[in-house]
Amino acid sequence: MTYDVAIVGTGPAGLSAALTLKLHNKEILWLGSAVGSDKIEKSEKIANYPGVPMVGGSELNRIFRKQAEELGIQITEKKVTNIAALDDKFMLLADNDMYEARSLLLATGIPAAKGMENEERLLGSGVSYCATCDGFLYKEKRIAVYCTDSRMAHDIDYLEEIASKLYVYTNFGYSSDSPKIEILNKPIIKLGGEMKADSVELSDGRRLDVDGVFILRPTIAPSTLFSGLELEGAHIKVDKNQETSYKGCFAAGDCTGRPYQIAKAVGEGSVAAHAILEYLSESDKGSAHAE
Amino acid sequence: MTYDVAIVGTGPAGLSAALTLKLHNKEILWLGSAVGSDKIEKSEKIANYPGVPMVGGSELNRIFRKQAEELGIQITEKKVTNIAALDDKFMLLADNDMYEARSLLLATGIPAAKGMENEERLLGSGVSYCATCDGFLYKEKRIAVYCTDSRMAHDIDYLEEIASKLYVYTNFGYSSDSPKIEILNKPIIKLGGEMKADSVELSDGRRLDVDGVFILRPTIAPSTLFSGLELEGAHIKVDKNQETSYKGCFAAGDCTGRPYQIAKAVGEGSVAAHAILEYLSESDKGSAHAE
Repeated sequence: MTYDVAIVGTGPAGLSAALTLKLHNKEILWLGSAVGSDKIEKSEKIANYPGVPMVGGSELNRIFRKQAEELGIQITEKKVTNIAALDDKFMLLADNDMYEARSLLLATGIPAAKGMENEERLLGSGVSYCATCDGFLYKEKRIAVYCTDSRMAHDIDYLEEIASKLYVYTNFGYSSDSPKIEILNKPIIKLGGEMKADSVELSDGRRLDVDGVFILRPTIAPSTLFSGLELEGAHIKVDKNQETSYKGCFAAGDCTGRPYQIAKAVGEGSVAAHAILEYLSESDKGSAHAE
Repeated sequence: MTYDVAIVGTGPAGLSAALTLKLHNKEILWLGSAVGSDKIEKSEKIANYPGVPMVGGSELNRIFRKQAEELGIQITEKKVTNIAALDDKFMLLADNDMYEARSLLLATGIPAAKGMENEERLLGSGVSYCATCDGFLYKEKRIAVYCTDSRMAHDIDYLEEIASKLYVYTNFGYSSDSPKIEILNKPIIKLGGEMKADSVELSDGRRLDVDGVFILRPTIAPSTLFSGLELEGAHIKVDKNQETSYKGCFAAGDCTGRPYQIAKAVGEGSVAAHAILEYLSESDKGSAHAE
């Protein structure tokens, strides 16, 4: 089926848009973590979100999730790794499944860290964001993993089964007694290789030869997800309707810029939802004329 | 005293900004109705505000009020009737009291109705928005009152004491047995007079000679409050930091444009608050240099 809208990201911007779009009976594909925003989940106290006074982050996520569930909005818990535009549709690749939507809302948040050196250049050439998608390419090979999302620890286990040797850096204390795994105490800061990634460099200068690198972060930079979007620094450029430089593609929340605030995110999600409703309605009229 | 910021309007945009500014220890003057947004108060159900599922408007206002109170944020329940900029300060006239603030946030909402014919031209010349401020000018005179805010019914009583004759149109069933008062069944749609208002015209074409006209609405158009702001249609033009065309003056919520949504209002209030923090900090540095 073709969804009316695909929302990438289950934080407050995505939720806000989903609520409004659902109330307008749109078919929504909502992709991301079932927990909600990782950043909110880790917040001890939130004091300035109107309507929910002095709340723990994890509790606020629970409230958000419940509200979505009560309106019958489902989260498809998959990680989007690539998006392409085809005619007037968007194709989304998530955990090896392909989805189709008439409009797109990027509400991905902002990656906490900048990408590492050569990451963007070598992406797809020995560098992958998705173990499930690309793991099979590295059977009996040497793999380096850089993982900063504890919810993706199972991806490390999966890669361990495949690889001949696995170098693992995490920031959440991953451990394993597999003889194939070497835990790295220093983060990977640079990738080496001309046409294809063939090595990684750690922050202490140590260099390791590898056949592939998996970078597993909570958030993928939206520019990497969907190339060709106009940026402003690290943020997606949007107009006052939250539309990006690509027609039919909208963005909301931290990925469009500061301040990184829940209130701003829900506001932009709401504005985007209304703009998407208008976009869908105009596109309906357009196809009616064409028939 | 000079406040760090004056916030005009106690709806969700004003609240959102107030929460953030208070948490940053700013001195806030928050002017408006103690109830909060009139529009929210009258909403039966709100289904798409993230964090407060399926809530009655009056209940949501109660939650908002409580949240502000718990942070020690007070509402000064006065109606702002004029704002002027003087050097790097804003002067606000509210119920005949004068206040001073270093920065200004307009979160006034949007007047439900357009102004009536000749209203803007004759404002201050026989036309007033404030009974307490200007009533004394019309002792023993003929006054027409157009009132669409039941909370201002007491202003009608006050004008009755002053006037020799009072023509009253309301949309909330005001009644009186004063022989001075004539209740109008049709709204005033037009004001007459060259240099000064001297008559009103009703929607049925009836014309009444008067000495003054009081227009009492829940919201005053921000362009009337503070002249010289650049507009876009009926809305205040703002940049992406919610700053208006006048430096140090910010705007948020319905007054900046559609969609008229609570989520958008709190988002813009949050963005404005952060921009105001930056503005105040830069202006501090500026005065330090000047000393």
